[in-house]
Amino acid sequence: MAISQQVFLRDAMRRLNLTRDVFAARIGVKRRALDTWLLPEGSQEARTMPEVVSRFVTEIVENAALMQKYAQSAQSGPLRDRIAIDNKHQLLSVDQFTRESVEELFRVADLMQPIARRRKVSRVLEGAVLGNLFFEASTRTRVSFGAAFCRLGGSVCDTTGFTFSSMAKGESIYDTSRVMSGYVDAMVIRHPEQGSVAEFAAATNIPVVNGGDGAGEHPSQALLDLYTILTEFSRLGKLLDGAHIVMAGDLKYGRTVHSLIKLLALYRGMKFTLVSPPGLEMPEHLLDQASRNGHVIEQTHDLAAGLKGADVVYATRVQKERFSGENLEGYSADFQVNRTIVDACCGPDTIVMHPLPRDSREGANDLSTDLNHDPRLAIFRQTDNGIPVRMAIFAVLLGVEGLVQHSLRDVTWTPPSHIGPDDSVFHGID
Amino acid sequence: MAISQQVFLRDAMRRLNLTRDVFAARIGVKRRALDTWLLPEGSQEARTMPEVVSRFVTEIVENAALMQKYAQSAQSGPLRDRIAIDNKHQLLSVDQFTRESVEELFRVADLMQPIARRRKVSRVLEGAVLGNLFFEASTRTRVSFGAAFCRLGGSVCDTTGFTFSSMAKGESIYDTSRVMSGYVDAMVIRHPEQGSVAEFAAATNIPVVNGGDGAGEHPSQALLDLYTILTEFSRLGKLLDGAHIVMAGDLKYGRTVHSLIKLLALYRGMKFTLVSPPGLEMPEHLLDQASRNGHVIEQTHDLAAGLKGADVVYATRVQKERFSGENLEGYSADFQVNRTIVDACCGPDTIVMHPLPRDSREGANDLSTDLNHDPRLAIFRQTDNGIPVRMAIFAVLLGVEGLVQHSLRDVTWTPPSHIGPDDSVFHGID
Amino acid sequence: MAISQQVFLRDAMRRLNLTRDVFAARIGVKRRALDTWLLPEGSQEARTMPEVVSRFVTEIVENAALMQKYAQSAQSGPLRDRIAIDNKHQLLSVDQFTRESVEELFRVADLMQPIARRRKVSRVLEGAVLGNLFFEASTRTRVSFGAAFCRLGGSVCDTTGFTFSSMAKGESIYDTSRVMSGYVDAMVIRHPEQGSVAEFAAATNIPVVNGGDGAGEHPSQALLDLYTILTEFSRLGKLLDGAHIVMAGDLKYGRTVHSLIKLLALYRGMKFTLVSPPGLEMPEHLLDQASRNGHVIEQTHDLAAGLKGADVVYATRVQKERFSGENLEGYSADFQVNRTIVDACCGPDTIVMHPLPRDSREGANDLSTDLNHDPRLAIFRQTDNGIPVRMAIFAVLLGVEGLVQHSLRDVTWTPPSHIGPDDSVFHGID
Repeated sequence: MAISQQVFLRDAMRRLNLTRDVFAARIGVKRRALDTWLLPEGSQEARTMPEVVSRFVTEIVENAALMQKYAQSAQSGPLRDRIAIDNKHQLLSVDQFTRESVEELFRVADLMQPIARRRKVSRVLEGAVLGNLFFEASTRTRVSFGAAFCRLGGSVCDTTGFTFSSMAKGESIYDTSRVMSGYVDAMVIRHPEQGSVAEFAAATNIPVVNGGDGAGEHPSQALLDLYTILTEFSRLGKLLDGAHIVMAGDLKYGRTVHSLIKLLALYRGMKFTLVSPPGLEMPEHLLDQASRNGHVIEQTHDLAAGLKGADVVYATRVQKERFSGENLEGYSADFQVNRTIVDACCGPDTIVMHPLPRDSREGANDLSTDLNHDPRLAIFRQTDNGIPVRMAIFAVLLGVEGLVQHSLRDVTWTPPSHIGPDDSVFHGID
Repeated sequence: MAISQQVFLRDAMRRLNLTRDVFAARIGVKRRALDTWLLPEGSQEARTMPEVVSRFVTEIVENAALMQKYAQSAQSGPLRDRIAIDNKHQLLSVDQFTRESVEELFRVADLMQPIARRRKVSRVLEGAVLGNLFFEASTRTRVSFGAAFCRLGGSVCDTTGFTFSSMAKGESIYDTSRVMSGYVDAMVIRHPEQGSVAEFAAATNIPVVNGGDGAGEHPSQALLDLYTILTEFSRLGKLLDGAHIVMAGDLKYGRTVHSLIKLLALYRGMKFTLVSPPGLEMPEHLLDQASRNGHVIEQTHDLAAGLKGADVVYATRVQKERFSGENLEGYSADFQVNRTIVDACCGPDTIVMHPLPRDSREGANDLSTDLNHDPRLAIFRQTDNGIPVRMAIFAVLLGVEGLVQHSLRDVTWTPPSHIGPDDSVFHGID
Repeated sequence: MAISQQVFLRDAMRRLNLTRDVFAARIGVKRRALDTWLLPEGSQEARTMPEVVSRFVTEIVENAALMQKYAQSAQSGPLRDRIAIDNKHQLLSVDQFTRESVEELFRVADLMQPIARRRKVSRVLEGAVLGNLFFEASTRTRVSFGAAFCRLGGSVCDTTGFTFSSMAKGESIYDTSRVMSGYVDAMVIRHPEQGSVAEFAAATNIPVVNGGDGAGEHPSQALLDLYTILTEFSRLGKLLDGAHIVMAGDLKYGRTVHSLIKLLALYRGMKFTLVSPPGLEMPEHLLDQASRNGHVIEQTHDLAAGLKGADVVYATRVQKERFSGENLEGYSADFQVNRTIVDACCGPDTIVMHPLPRDSREGANDLSTDLNHDPRLAIFRQTDNGIPVRMAIFAVLLGVEGLVQHSLRDVTWTPPSHIGPDDSVFHGID
């Protein structure tokens, strides 16, 4: 490049208004590497930045400029107003997002990474109370939302169990929601019945997050899935526009793929390959919606054929608990994503995802554990991303995203450099 | 009035030692309104204070003077010592209160309103741990106590389920209580058996709050009910002495009305109209107790007749779960408090209350939802008041009520101006 | 003594590098008493230190010197590295401890006492989140760990119930553990199956504490038991080396005594008397292990004979829930530790312990309640010690033990001087 890499990088950081730490995280490199690229060329420790980084940074800066221009015209005011539903700061569906607003949310999630990775602590929501209302068991989603709220400094009141004691006595959703709203500052609601979370949300003006409503939506899962894809692509120097996404498994009842395909369809020139056992195909209306945007959609029952050229393989569990007439205990072995088929059909830059939990019992033929040591398996990076994404959702809905950066303090304790013994080297805390 | 309203109001605030914010809250007006009354008379924005406010403030100042006098003689020392039971800082029954001490508690609750209404944050109990022990399901009471403790800066350890695992192994209440007391700084206990909370309380010196013990007491509910009546009356410019209170519904098993009538009987010249289906009348000993104080008590089975001239209509749910022989699924339609009968029999200043939950299923004939948009319906203002009242209970029992005022910080997030979409305009956060 | 007691005491505090508060706690006397000993001899309030205190302080100083010498050679680096298992900062078994490292842990627990006794507050772990995962009900252990973490300033996410919702869907322990590790900073795991906690621990690099794994270990219980013995002995001016420990009851399934005898065997010249009903004797491998260290072990079925000369009587509950073929509802009356037998066989300095819960139902013949007012009964001092010991475990595993001392602030609330109405005078908070 014509200008020196130091000038180029400094200029990029200035235009993007990012610190070195955040910039390094944004482009998926270690802070130490960035530092060596920023050293004067004569310096002994100085290193040359790889070409892909240069291209990626150029892309980011150009996109940011576009985005800013867009922001100055169509968009204005806080993000929570732009994604609002019925003028309320609530997150019920991925349909509330545009490409621009979802990426703005992810920039807030990027801000949360130093906290999620336990290098920094924030108390920006100190004094706020979350009502974490789970009318259906989902331990991990509950803990993920709860931990995210705690990491912003707030407190959490949990409820679990199939029903509130008061609802068992005939209380309406309207009353339950309005009463809880007087106690807490935000609610996450998980409920087995589709539409019930919207009913809760209608009865209150406080922020409500849909934590999954039966066959309905689970927007925070789709958001963390998309965030994971973007983060992984950023590390690999790929762009999402034009990518090839394979979704494999139970695409009929797999709620997560329904929401994810909607979000991915906000990008340009996508290719979706949908691999499912007969009878578990993706519903027509979702196919229509995605293809209206000019994306290429292919459907097949042949996993090996489908995986060819995939940038992302998104495998799903059989949602037995939602079956109405289908007769299936697990997948046949033909539908299992495992090391053999991934090695045979995918490249070194493919990433393998799954919404978890995966059924690891024999005969389930869910995503195989033989990929656990393979750096392409992104499933735990995916669940890890639940924390920054859910922190971003809370911060945006409560309108404190602008206070986070200056609220950061160093952690007092010393976390392990990698939280999982099989975590890939590029996924360390540092 | 002879003196200018500015001098009058300033003098009142000085005598009562209240800030403008707290004074405005005390008299139930917006701070903005108070500000306009305090402007110099010539000023463009200045407004004339309504006559009712002037009377109300006069009454408050006179009462405060009386109270102070009383305080200097009979009462002395911290409130928690005056309401103590067996020399312990515990709240087991409404019988622990006099009119003076209950109003002193409510002045602390008033201090908590800026926190409860999410304008201020306090961390005055930072480091303290609450044991929130629910041996009987009562999700909302549990969350209300938990959120109240969190809003004071404390942490909460919850237990739910019909029994402790240790008690299932034959552990005595004495042991359970003493062991838990070594872990936490205060306990709320909900238990299905009458008297059991007192047994817990006897085994510890740490603050214990009775969160409901079967057919026994639920003092925090009665306190928030009385606080709601006083707050509503304050807004309406009414005094509680001499008021007409209608209690309607299951007065036999409705624990809340039993405790509430005891507290109301601390006031002067009350008229109680008790409307119940045959067989669900208020127990004799409570009637005796209330009438001993010279209050007028009328009993009827005719709801319309009973509602005439009511200042407060307190409706209750059928406590089916406490029935021993009675044969009743819900109320007959004759006992339903609904819009038609309220419009027909009550004035614009009547307030309608209910301990909640209400049974909104068809045929239950519990308090009707057709009043939801009627500003006379105070049920959600009532549950909202659970937070400041329970905060006050904790602050008083732990002896930190004097530290609250100076611990207040502004909230970082921006809550909605009204937490419920149907909240009346006078019930905004601002 | 040749030198004045003031010089002696000041020198000791300097050598031990302890504040007056901590030093007083270390030697088990009230701060006020220590203060009077430190006053100039002529002063009116000055008191003479008892001979036993002088001997005890001498012992402590000498031991500390030895320990320091030892520390400079064999030991180095943070405690968590020395007790690490598979290079991880996890606590799975008491086998991870030497006498030196266990006493180092207890010095950290001593630091925690002002917090545990509610005189001080620390926020040293602010921003950290504990995953308190209880796959088996154990309310009090869960609350004890949770309260300990809260008292260090952290937040707690609890899970209870026999299984995770995700594990019910076939998720492996590996996946559950790794996913949770992305949400929280440390995990406590209680699980009904022996070995399962180690499986959880293997799948993560974050600190894991074994909260009990079936017939396996429950190391924090054994540690608080040993800490209690040492603290009680310190108060009584006794040394643990050479002490006579009686363990009575179900020694076959009583997990706590298995771990405790291993820890006690780290000391010198112990005498263990093991009293159990026929068929519930301590397993052979534990007897072998303890006797290899040269300790004296006696086994008997005669409680009265066994109690003679005991320094500690450790009674246990019948672990019916772990019986496989044994036919026993409770103990026969012959095995009950009660006032009559303690008065007949034990001296005034014997201490009586029990892991709790004790079965207080008639016919269970578990540790009798008729000792509740006897100062020798240490069971509640024992459970109280769960807080400082568990705080120490967390602080050490997370590497913040060095920050605690300077993080202390005064409590804002005023706790009772004794938390239990029957607490002995020497067990006050002050």
